[in-house]
Amino acid sequence: MKTDVLIIGSGMAGLSAAVYAARYNLKTLVIGHEFGGATSTAWTIENYPGYVAIDGYDLMMKVKEQAEKIGAELQTDKVVAIEKRNDHFVAKTEEGKEVEAKAIILSCGAARKKLGLPREDEFSQGKGIHYCTTCDGPLYKEKVVAVVGSGDSAVKGLNLAVQYAQKIHWLIRGDQIKAEPFNYEKVKKYFGDKIEVHYNTQVTELVGERRLESVKLNTGTDLKLDGLFVEIGAQPEVELATHVGVALDEYGYVKVNNMMETSVPGIYAAGDVTNFFGHFKQDITAAAMGSVAATSAFKHIQHAPNIEEAKASSSETPETVKASVESF
Amino acid sequence: MKTDVLIIGSGMAGLSAAVYAARYNLKTLVIGHEFGGATSTAWTIENYPGYVAIDGYDLMMKVKEQAEKIGAELQTDKVVAIEKRNDHFVAKTEEGKEVEAKAIILSCGAARKKLGLPREDEFSQGKGIHYCTTCDGPLYKEKVVAVVGSGDSAVKGLNLAVQYAQKIHWLIRGDQIKAEPFNYEKVKKYFGDKIEVHYNTQVTELVGERRLESVKLNTGTDLKLDGLFVEIGAQPEVELATHVGVALDEYGYVKVNNMMETSVPGIYAAGDVTNFFGHFKQDITAAAMGSVAATSAFKHIQHAPNIEEAKASSSETPETVKASVESF
Repeated sequence: MKTDVLIIGSGMAGLSAAVYAARYNLKTLVIGHEFGGATSTAWTIENYPGYVAIDGYDLMMKVKEQAEKIGAELQTDKVVAIEKRNDHFVAKTEEGKEVEAKAIILSCGAARKKLGLPREDEFSQGKGIHYCTTCDGPLYKEKVVAVVGSGDSAVKGLNLAVQYAQKIHWLIRGDQIKAEPFNYEKVKKYFGDKIEVHYNTQVTELVGERRLESVKLNTGTDLKLDGLFVEIGAQPEVELATHVGVALDEYGYVKVNNMMETSVPGIYAAGDVTNFFGHFKQDITAAAMGSVAATSAFKHIQHAPNIEEAKASSSETPETVKASVESF
Repeated sequence: MKTDVLIIGSGMAGLSAAVYAARYNLKTLVIGHEFGGATSTAWTIENYPGYVAIDGYDLMMKVKEQAEKIGAELQTDKVVAIEKRNDHFVAKTEEGKEVEAKAIILSCGAARKKLGLPREDEFSQGKGIHYCTTCDGPLYKEKVVAVVGSGDSAVKGLNLAVQYAQKIHWLIRGDQIKAEPFNYEKVKKYFGDKIEVHYNTQVTELVGERRLESVKLNTGTDLKLDGLFVEIGAQPEVELATHVGVALDEYGYVKVNNMMETSVPGIYAAGDVTNFFGHFKQDITAAAMGSVAATSAFKHIQHAPNIEEAKASSSETPETVKASVESF
């Protein structure tokens, strides 16, 4: 199939890009395998300007509805390869589809980082190890769990987990909490009670017969537990970017300029796959980056020669097709 | 009075900055003289990701409610001067208040551009000349009006005005429409009917006894009309920035980097007062810039020596006050 713009990834950046691309009257296709991305599993969001509080999944459903209403199409599938062919791009999906696009927006987000310990993959198949506390925390009602990590996602996870777990060990590699104070203040009141904080602590071994039963710590302790939540950050999904030679930055993210242009004309990026605002990776910044990426894709397509030809042969008057690049 | 962060301007950038600043547990004061800024007069907004459609004023009320709920304070007043005094800033307001702040976020937006013709100011006192069609368009029910300008605000204004006016002359300086196609498509269907489009046309004289009655055009035409809507862009409000030596860019906007830092440490900027995303000035980008500016202000305040002293004398344990800069 053919489209003007192919948006890879259906999280906040991708769907916001879709809203804008569709408003520019571009044929807009979003392909994503995890609807809503990180946002849809984010539990309650209180820092997206415009909503005092909204569930992450609900917010993503609203952006989806908005994008579709304007004319964007969403497909659940996974793009596994992209290549440049003449003046356009061709993407292949897991389900065997081939999509021809005049521009591509990479909004594939980032994958959760793992501990890198033996048996981690085995135990993460529903056997005690999880990478999203806010998603799977409720499974551990009245159980003993541990949370690894000291950033925002760890603390948001703790806020949920304290409502279910009987006891939570918070395992922090260094001696600092790195979370937003607003969320941190909420968990503090459980310290010494439901939450036991272990500073300078790392998991060195995962132990269990059929499922995770305990972890060994660098402090020498054997910690018995029912579940382990690993919240130690994310790795940008840059593989597709490398297929077409898109440059990465020093941290391994897709490198973009102010207008979300990558090093390859016609390819744009937005959201967590970039490091544009540094460690500050939020829904509101992802949404803005998506809107900017769509604008740049629109400019690119307006200037592309094949589009100019299409215009020349269209039945519109010259004035009406000029709606125009200079305004952006 | 004293505050951690003073946000100047209560539009989308300012109130989004307030949401984030308050979440960082900063004492946050917003001073603005036009609640909601350009957004509150924007009529229906359909491109803010998360709302299929929302009235601009309603959207701003939601962000205000959100900011206040988290702890930000809003004051209706106008900052008329700022200066640096030792390690902080002092702002003075029209109502004579003096505010001491550790950091300032400039989110003062941009003022509408004028035609620059004799008697323009006189007629703009409710006597026929307006600068916001979506605000004042409904005043001209069954009347003849003209709209000057070819960008998004002009076209959004036309979309509203056609519902009220009997006849609209659209005066375009060049031969191109520069508006977003989505809005433009809606007005096109009135061409030749309610809307008469005049290309290569400029107003050269404003004529009227007590109020505007007609305009002379460069084409020689005398155009009789009841109201004139001037939608030719905006000029960033950079005067306060210049008080403290903040550098401007080549277009006269406040110059910022990715983290919304200006050339003066402790002063940040967000929204239409900057040109960070070029001509692309949207609610979603203003909101993102505000959130980033607040984050940078937070970092600045965390590092400021007076804050460190406050920490040392606080009753909190060292761990709890580290909630921390490294995460951003």
